Amino acid sequence: MEVDYSSIKVIGFDADDTLWVNETYFREAEEDFASLLDSFETKNKIDQELFKMEMKNLPLYGYGIKGFMLSMVESALEISNNTVSQATIADLLNLGKKMISHPVELLEGVKEVLEALSGRYRLIVLTKGDLLDQERKIERSSLSKYFHHVEVLSDKKEENYLNLLEHLEINIQEFLMIGNSLKSDVLPLLNIGAQAVHVPFHTTWQHEEVTIEDRDFNYLKINKLSDILKHL
Amino acid sequence: MEVDYSSIKVIGFDADDTLWVNETYFREAEEDFASLLDSFETKNKIDQELFKMEMKNLPLYGYGIKGFMLSMVESALEISNNTVSQATIADLLNLGKKMISHPVELLEGVKEVLEALSGRYRLIVLTKGDLLDQERKIERSSLSKYFHHVEVLSDKKEENYLNLLEHLEINIQEFLMIGNSLKSDVLPLLNIGAQAVHVPFHTTWQHEEVTIEDRDFNYLKINKLSDILKHL
Repeated sequence: MEVDYSSIKVIGFDADDTLWVNETYFREAEEDFASLLDSFETKNKIDQELFKMEMKNLPLYGYGIKGFMLSMVESALEISNNTVSQATIADLLNLGKKMISHPVELLEGVKEVLEALSGRYRLIVLTKGDLLDQERKIERSSLSKYFHHVEVLSDKKEENYLNLLEHLEINIQEFLMIGNSLKSDVLPLLNIGAQAVHVPFHTTWQHEEVTIEDRDFNYLKINKLSDILKHL
Repeated sequence: MEVDYSSIKVIGFDADDTLWVNETYFREAEEDFASLLDSFETKNKIDQELFKMEMKNLPLYGYGIKGFMLSMVESALEISNNTVSQATIADLLNLGKKMISHPVELLEGVKEVLEALSGRYRLIVLTKGDLLDQERKIERSSLSKYFHHVEVLSDKKEENYLNLLEHLEINIQEFLMIGNSLKSDVLPLLNIGAQAVHVPFHTTWQHEEVTIEDRDFNYLKINKLSDILKHL
């Protein structure tokens, strides 16, 4: 695969599972959720029901922990036919609060990569999720000094990227996006004529999974973030 | 009071309770919340407890309906000593979902004002709350054509305004903010050297209430939004 990054001036980084761990905490919360409800259903069924509830509520709540908390409560009521104990509902709220307060755990190589690139490119963060939650993570990560701008988007579709690049006055051909989600960080960028690098994280949320014909697209896939320094 | 708007080039509008009704729906939801819990406590006590819970959770959840929903559930558990019925918890979730789906109700004169000003000034929306929720309201309002930019902030303190004006490359002396909250839309602007117009809404959330010595600040207070056209 040939990629040419000579025109690139601005690099966008996804945040969750690209700069720091995120999906892992959702997986752990789902485990806890299933344990709290294990008298009502099998783990497999509980996983499925929670995911269905999240998808049903996504248009209303959008991405982020608060929507996940609300879906856990609603799903617990539904799975238990309104017999789940009030103490368990309280446990679910505490589960979510713990997620919000979780320390930020940077992924390997993040600081070195940002340090190496920040002098040569304009770096920005493009993430979705709760606004306050993402701002807090940037602050706790001590990475904000590397970035010219942090943008929290309600979604990461072609239209969201086009609006943002226009607003930030970035030429599409000069923009490279780096992230762990093919669906959110790679495909929409390639579709609008920008470039993208895929750095898979070991866990992918079912909602972010896509199957593509690799040969149709020209993008770089790297195993860890620091591999990007061989190409930029 | 003398105000001089000759230097103004950019006007920021608050959204909730400045462009459209918002606080009214929270007041109605609080009424419904108190009714659902009226077997446990007096309305007055329930109001107080819910507000306390919202304030406790604000640093975690930020502004917006999802955080309000989570605080309602937690407060219901607390007020009832974990004896509130599961069906009532489900009712609380539905109450919040209805708020999210509520049609946008424009305030009087909003369209005329934006129509009159949009050719002569750069207009932007500056609001706090849930990102998705606010984007949805802008879309449903059919007002987006009047605005160069919509920014959803996690808070509206001096620092948030300073960062935003820098990011949008707006000179402080050329900026005028219009909104219903003295605390969020007026005082921080005056403190950083921008200008501000106060258009009170008939209902103010307790958290947004401030007492100030009017004579210390130079800003215009108008009774309805369209009065601004006499000054701009």
